[in-house]
Amino acid sequence: MSTYTLPNIPWEDRPAGSSDVVWRYSANPIIPRDLLPISNSIFNSAAVPFNGKFAGVFRVDNRKRDMTLHSGFSEDGYTWKLSDAPIQWKSSDPDAAYSMYKYDPRVVWIEDRYWVAWCNGFHGPTIGLGYTYDFQEFHFFENALLPYNRNGVPFPRKINGRYVMLSRPSDNGHTPFGDIYLSQSLDMKYWGEHRYVMGTKGGWQSTKVGAGPIPIETKEGWLLFYHGVLTSCNGFVYSWSAALLDLDKPWKVMYRAAPYLLSPQTYYECVGDVPNVAFPCAALYDQPTGRIAVYYGGADTVTALAFCKVEEVIDFVKKNSEV
Amino acid sequence: MSTYTLPNIPWEDRPAGSSDVVWRYSANPIIPRDLLPISNSIFNSAAVPFNGKFAGVFRVDNRKRDMTLHSGFSEDGYTWKLSDAPIQWKSSDPDAAYSMYKYDPRVVWIEDRYWVAWCNGFHGPTIGLGYTYDFQEFHFFENALLPYNRNGVPFPRKINGRYVMLSRPSDNGHTPFGDIYLSQSLDMKYWGEHRYVMGTKGGWQSTKVGAGPIPIETKEGWLLFYHGVLTSCNGFVYSWSAALLDLDKPWKVMYRAAPYLLSPQTYYECVGDVPNVAFPCAALYDQPTGRIAVYYGGADTVTALAFCKVEEVIDFVKKNSEV
Amino acid sequence: MSTYTLPNIPWEDRPAGSSDVVWRYSANPIIPRDLLPISNSIFNSAAVPFNGKFAGVFRVDNRKRDMTLHSGFSEDGYTWKLSDAPIQWKSSDPDAAYSMYKYDPRVVWIEDRYWVAWCNGFHGPTIGLGYTYDFQEFHFFENALLPYNRNGVPFPRKINGRYVMLSRPSDNGHTPFGDIYLSQSLDMKYWGEHRYVMGTKGGWQSTKVGAGPIPIETKEGWLLFYHGVLTSCNGFVYSWSAALLDLDKPWKVMYRAAPYLLSPQTYYECVGDVPNVAFPCAALYDQPTGRIAVYYGGADTVTALAFCKVEEVIDFVKKNSEV
Amino acid sequence: MSTYTLPNIPWEDRPAGSSDVVWRYSANPIIPRDLLPISNSIFNSAAVPFNGKFAGVFRVDNRKRDMTLHSGFSEDGYTWKLSDAPIQWKSSDPDAAYSMYKYDPRVVWIEDRYWVAWCNGFHGPTIGLGYTYDFQEFHFFENALLPYNRNGVPFPRKINGRYVMLSRPSDNGHTPFGDIYLSQSLDMKYWGEHRYVMGTKGGWQSTKVGAGPIPIETKEGWLLFYHGVLTSCNGFVYSWSAALLDLDKPWKVMYRAAPYLLSPQTYYECVGDVPNVAFPCAALYDQPTGRIAVYYGGADTVTALAFCKVEEVIDFVKKNSEV
Amino acid sequence: MSTYTLPNIPWEDRPAGSSDVVWRYSANPIIPRDLLPISNSIFNSAAVPFNGKFAGVFRVDNRKRDMTLHSGFSEDGYTWKLSDAPIQWKSSDPDAAYSMYKYDPRVVWIEDRYWVAWCNGFHGPTIGLGYTYDFQEFHFFENALLPYNRNGVPFPRKINGRYVMLSRPSDNGHTPFGDIYLSQSLDMKYWGEHRYVMGTKGGWQSTKVGAGPIPIETKEGWLLFYHGVLTSCNGFVYSWSAALLDLDKPWKVMYRAAPYLLSPQTYYECVGDVPNVAFPCAALYDQPTGRIAVYYGGADTVTALAFCKVEEVIDFVKKNSEV
Amino acid sequence: MSTYTLPNIPWEDRPAGSSDVVWRYSANPIIPRDLLPISNSIFNSAAVPFNGKFAGVFRVDNRKRDMTLHSGFSEDGYTWKLSDAPIQWKSSDPDAAYSMYKYDPRVVWIEDRYWVAWCNGFHGPTIGLGYTYDFQEFHFFENALLPYNRNGVPFPRKINGRYVMLSRPSDNGHTPFGDIYLSQSLDMKYWGEHRYVMGTKGGWQSTKVGAGPIPIETKEGWLLFYHGVLTSCNGFVYSWSAALLDLDKPWKVMYRAAPYLLSPQTYYECVGDVPNVAFPCAALYDQPTGRIAVYYGGADTVTALAFCKVEEVIDFVKKNSEV
Repeated sequence: MSTYTLPNIPWEDRPAGSSDVVWRYSANPIIPRDLLPISNSIFNSAAVPFNGKFAGVFRVDNRKRDMTLHSGFSEDGYTWKLSDAPIQWKSSDPDAAYSMYKYDPRVVWIEDRYWVAWCNGFHGPTIGLGYTYDFQEFHFFENALLPYNRNGVPFPRKINGRYVMLSRPSDNGHTPFGDIYLSQSLDMKYWGEHRYVMGTKGGWQSTKVGAGPIPIETKEGWLLFYHGVLTSCNGFVYSWSAALLDLDKPWKVMYRAAPYLLSPQTYYECVGDVPNVAFPCAALYDQPTGRIAVYYGGADTVTALAFCKVEEVIDFVKKNSEV
Repeated sequence: MSTYTLPNIPWEDRPAGSSDVVWRYSANPIIPRDLLPISNSIFNSAAVPFNGKFAGVFRVDNRKRDMTLHSGFSEDGYTWKLSDAPIQWKSSDPDAAYSMYKYDPRVVWIEDRYWVAWCNGFHGPTIGLGYTYDFQEFHFFENALLPYNRNGVPFPRKINGRYVMLSRPSDNGHTPFGDIYLSQSLDMKYWGEHRYVMGTKGGWQSTKVGAGPIPIETKEGWLLFYHGVLTSCNGFVYSWSAALLDLDKPWKVMYRAAPYLLSPQTYYECVGDVPNVAFPCAALYDQPTGRIAVYYGGADTVTALAFCKVEEVIDFVKKNSEV
Repeated sequence: MSTYTLPNIPWEDRPAGSSDVVWRYSANPIIPRDLLPISNSIFNSAAVPFNGKFAGVFRVDNRKRDMTLHSGFSEDGYTWKLSDAPIQWKSSDPDAAYSMYKYDPRVVWIEDRYWVAWCNGFHGPTIGLGYTYDFQEFHFFENALLPYNRNGVPFPRKINGRYVMLSRPSDNGHTPFGDIYLSQSLDMKYWGEHRYVMGTKGGWQSTKVGAGPIPIETKEGWLLFYHGVLTSCNGFVYSWSAALLDLDKPWKVMYRAAPYLLSPQTYYECVGDVPNVAFPCAALYDQPTGRIAVYYGGADTVTALAFCKVEEVIDFVKKNSEV
Repeated sequence: MSTYTLPNIPWEDRPAGSSDVVWRYSANPIIPRDLLPISNSIFNSAAVPFNGKFAGVFRVDNRKRDMTLHSGFSEDGYTWKLSDAPIQWKSSDPDAAYSMYKYDPRVVWIEDRYWVAWCNGFHGPTIGLGYTYDFQEFHFFENALLPYNRNGVPFPRKINGRYVMLSRPSDNGHTPFGDIYLSQSLDMKYWGEHRYVMGTKGGWQSTKVGAGPIPIETKEGWLLFYHGVLTSCNGFVYSWSAALLDLDKPWKVMYRAAPYLLSPQTYYECVGDVPNVAFPCAALYDQPTGRIAVYYGGADTVTALAFCKVEEVIDFVKKNSEV
Repeated sequence: MSTYTLPNIPWEDRPAGSSDVVWRYSANPIIPRDLLPISNSIFNSAAVPFNGKFAGVFRVDNRKRDMTLHSGFSEDGYTWKLSDAPIQWKSSDPDAAYSMYKYDPRVVWIEDRYWVAWCNGFHGPTIGLGYTYDFQEFHFFENALLPYNRNGVPFPRKINGRYVMLSRPSDNGHTPFGDIYLSQSLDMKYWGEHRYVMGTKGGWQSTKVGAGPIPIETKEGWLLFYHGVLTSCNGFVYSWSAALLDLDKPWKVMYRAAPYLLSPQTYYECVGDVPNVAFPCAALYDQPTGRIAVYYGGADTVTALAFCKVEEVIDFVKKNSEV
Repeated sequence: MSTYTLPNIPWEDRPAGSSDVVWRYSANPIIPRDLLPISNSIFNSAAVPFNGKFAGVFRVDNRKRDMTLHSGFSEDGYTWKLSDAPIQWKSSDPDAAYSMYKYDPRVVWIEDRYWVAWCNGFHGPTIGLGYTYDFQEFHFFENALLPYNRNGVPFPRKINGRYVMLSRPSDNGHTPFGDIYLSQSLDMKYWGEHRYVMGTKGGWQSTKVGAGPIPIETKEGWLLFYHGVLTSCNGFVYSWSAALLDLDKPWKVMYRAAPYLLSPQTYYECVGDVPNVAFPCAALYDQPTGRIAVYYGGADTVTALAFCKVEEVIDFVKKNSEV
């Protein structure tokens, strides 16, 4: 019995007068920083369809500013109830499962279960992998890659017989560089056949780029939302846009939008623990209508929603492409 | 005749629905940046009881962005009247009293007078010491310590026959490290028997820590509010919390809260000359009721107030302690 | 036929109760970030009188965060209509006219035409020079100076038979230093007789200083509005003030205000793509009334207006002078 | 027919009067920087037994200061003849085999062939893997790991059914950090089950550590020579020492010598393209006699030899162990 | 009467067995660091033919480590007698002639006099210009360019009616970047028509490049010796090589050698005040024989000589060209 | 019975032909790096007269590169015998005597005992104080000052009833700044009345300065040898020179030599663990003859000797003074 069934996803029409391809939910942020009694902030959240409703894994920084993951559930995708305690990952091997912190999760349904990929503190940040069937019990699998790495994003199905995952090799701090690579695996445990996907370009994505939500399969290619970072004299600015990857050789970038789709401009994106951050981690896609709801973090403090239509995004990416 | 008599301190009950141990004054900030015609900002302020009312020494940055100290008076602890001109420190020795700037004062009544400790520009920041009887005339005493040092905080009485002062050795810039040390003196002039008190820990206090208001003596130990700094990719974030120090050997940390008590979350803490700063410099403590009013700077721009109860803070520190 | 005729400049009286020498327009910002469909931000704008109305050259960062220049027109100086497309600079020599980006324009009427000076990406930032007669057709002339340079500001007339220009030698990044120099030319093409004008001082101008609007000729000297930068632990803060330069030897600083005239304090100056920036690029001066309207960028995102009177500014500069 | 047969390895007795566990060859360096007409330097060299003599893969920086690999042969292990041209790696997939530079090779015989691991410029440094049977024809296999990584060192046999490799995750520059990790593989292509081996300690190994020659199997464990780096005020200093790893779980450090075995002290180690570097990449081990000859680079310029006895090294490591 | 007449230049044949295009003088260094009683070091020296013998301008750092220029004379080009006192530059305008330090001179005969270009401390390093007829009396002319700039190298004749000079825009410290640009002038005073010549490439010239001796006119183009800098983990390494520039449009690089011609490898190049520096500032060219003698600084401490033949250098540059 | 009696100090006449005020011992270095079986280096050594011979405290870095202090004895001041084990400091208070490392000792006889001051790792470097009567038993006294501090140098007698000590406030790394301050004490335990002595100047002392040997009392003032540091593009260069301080107010600099007296120029000063270091820590002064023997470290690796005459040094300092 599959637990992955797509409910009605959150949706709000484009505001009158706007021609933006992506628009914000009018009642943002949907998750405030203090939803939990112990939470300092809740953002960069991975929402997925689950049993006709929604479940997810959420980055919760507590008031020590420890970075942890919590599970959560929602009826409608807007209003979320999060577990009070962090996820306890089951594992029999303490050498493998050693973890100093956990953040920026992605969740994806592959074949028979929900896989979770996150940034795992294994003597340095790297890509932890685990899975759950029910968002109650979570199993630690293995760190897919060596440190230092962030933004591990699995594809939702095997390609050419291999599991595929994007990631962004990093360093141990506020990494001032970052390109997107792709790794392949026969079993989700051993990874190889690494390929270069794409690097920085000018402007909003001149410091680093990293994959965002799980790629969405379309006839035009894999639709990848990704973030880019610009370094102003007052720090990093995180915006996001989209690219289309080859369906068969997903390290081939077919099209890549030169402008951003959304940059930090509202109060909840510009003011908070890290000013000027809009960081997408999950996208719900309703294929029949083409509707997409993107969950993204605001100022590393709260969770917000934005909306778009798949055809319009593809059109925008192709028309504004600079590969 | 002692001039130190505790009046009714500022107080506002915890907001309905809140379970926070520390809560903000609803009409913050209490001192705006332009209270004085020449002021750019007024923050990190040292308020004390004085003659049944309140007096204080205030950090005022003028519109050159010079850092100076002004005296001030208040009937109720909320509304302050500051002197238009900076304090003129009396001294007979120009070699000793050389000063390029002055900031972040603390004021404490010890025995017969009010001592002022501040960050003094003596070819580099260090801890200046002076005293006043009336907040009209101020006497420069000596720099207690060599540069580079900040956040000098004397205890309110001798311990084991020695004056005691906390401080945070620093460097000459925006110091990216900082632990709290303690020094002892027989006469407030010569200091020695330096002891290590506590250093950085994870999360909100991972870059540096520094003592805040004058420690409050309680049966459980010296209650020390202190700030901690986290370095995000967009700069420093200043929060604050509390610890309990041994009454007799105050360099021994008995308990230390792992979560912060207050972090920058409001507009006046997040937006200003230095975004994301909440920096406490003074606390009024009403022993009979257990009420504490903490004066803290917001965004290095304005002065704000927060409230708590001593038993609740002690309870919080002990329950959440990680030493 | 001269196209330079001064219309009524924007003006609003000082707010009641204020004693500030410079005050903000009450309906700031006058140009929002998204005035153009493709604009990320519009700021650091050079407005001039043109045919009894106003024209200008504007820094427009598009949604790639490319930096470009657009022309614009206004009836009243408040409401602007900008061209949708960037200015196309005419030039016959691609080696000379190579340009990777363009930003922070100044426009000045000299003799028979409007000269435009801007920061031009010529394998590094330097001062590009061009001219227009009508704000329709723009001619690239030459880069006046070698990289790395920013804030090139020509004087509005020859002095001692030489064209004169201020500039701020820089490096290739977020330059942490910067003094104002002056260069001279017989023909606007070859520049020499470079003179040192002024460097950093304490406080708000301790990191770097750079010329702002075209200097205004007064009986007391050339009135120069200029920006200064302070480095806080969370980045650069851009404020501005004024100085008076010798009429004949304009590298001689006669008076220089030690306090700033305006520092970032409003939401649109403190929150945006680069928090805490107030950056003036143009000033309209109505000699009969002494009124001055200053156009300045807010947070590197929007364009704002401020007002002052020439006598008051001169008085302020002289009374608060520290050269 | 196996091509791996151990000839008499280079050897020179310990100098009279010395009690050092490791001693230098008296005629160092054995390979001068200009052995080839086009070579700037030849160092960090991987020598192995081959057909009863010696073969190897050598880091040769040419006079562009490009980093390349050359094959070489020797009768006696002292005198080497290198190919004039860099190794041409055969591969059918240009996406995988893209390489901007190659340096710091290790060579190991596993089962039926010689595997070569080196630092490969794949949009950043990572561990390239290839193999040869005859040191004439070299096959590119795959990059084992994602960038950024250096010092990939395979074990000479499978352990618990898995190929095993050490590496040092890095960044894209002169990495100021570095710990040793271990990765496992069923097929040399896909790698996982990453384990942490060891990190920096005080003194000579306080900045970073990295595996050196192929580990030597002994009854006491895997003998690993490794380098450590100290940062003086004038840059990095590379020394080397040894550790013993568990035979079955080679990520478990049984013993680790706290002192170095050899630090840069001679002219050819202290003066050259990078002063103060002694960097081991290969060790020949004669089991019957316990003799070990270590090839190491001097000052990133020349190749030198040092000698020791396996029992003495093991004894030293155990007696001076700090794990 | 012209004072520029070429005597027999220093010369020593290529050492037997060497195939290097450039070879060192066997008795290097020719000028020791302590030639003068007050000298700490003498290097980066500009020697020219003068009255059938040789004269020059020399960088002399005294034992304060102040950087000054001294004149010197030589009968044979090997043995130099330097003035005990620094050159006194005559000038009537103290604003223009302000100078905090002077270093790295170049000297060139143009038309009727010897022009000297050097790095002049004018509130930052820039290109000072002066002239002499007799190496006894020196006239300050003007700083050709604004700070920050180094390595100003004039061409020996007008091209297309313009004086031409190369330079390397810099910053105010140990500049980690640097490309070569060209500026033009009608009168040596006002400079414009700036053109980009060439930037960094891989390997030995990956950090910055700068022009060395005065370009030599050949049928194949202007022969430019230039230095390049590589950044190792222990600092900068200065090597040098050559390029050929178009005779008419000297900003066009026709050929550029990818390998260096000489890198620091001897004791006097590798050990001294700045290890690993070989920095050429002057070249004597004997057209009839094609002989070239290059004066270059060793380790920023002493002056050395190297030799080559013009045809061989041109051949090398063309055969190894990567533009 | 006083143990301080001055024997014949080491001495060698100035080399023929030299006019240097300070000259090196012809058989330098006097202590090789490997004098002890476990020593990596022995340098920055504090030699004093003791019982008609010599004793001292020596910085010994062992082969872990731990920094420790060893005692040593010498008959003639040239040939030293060092204890194999580090000094064990006696103390009853572990909080006070906590020490992570010890280096750069100075030793001075005051009144009745030998005081030792060194750089002590007390959660950061600071000035440790201890004493001995016999160089067999050493007593820890107290850290005189808070971290971060280095180069603590006591005066050999009380001045105006106070013990006096110089020091150089620092940070926690390879400090890029440093001035000399003075502190006073009634009891060697509590220190105050801190005064500024002198800071950096141009050239060889432009990065930082620090006191060297114990000041020598002369009729002209306290003769202070001190080191200065210049930052080249390849790191720090340590030279040394001298100043004369007022006898009564020793924070008043009467004269200060602008040139260095000795800079790193020999192999043992330029090549070693830290290239280009000459660092003086002790001086023996024979008043009747005016002879001075200075012990200084070479390249942070070995110990060397230099000689001078007190009148000549005083004459040099006064003639070349720039205060």
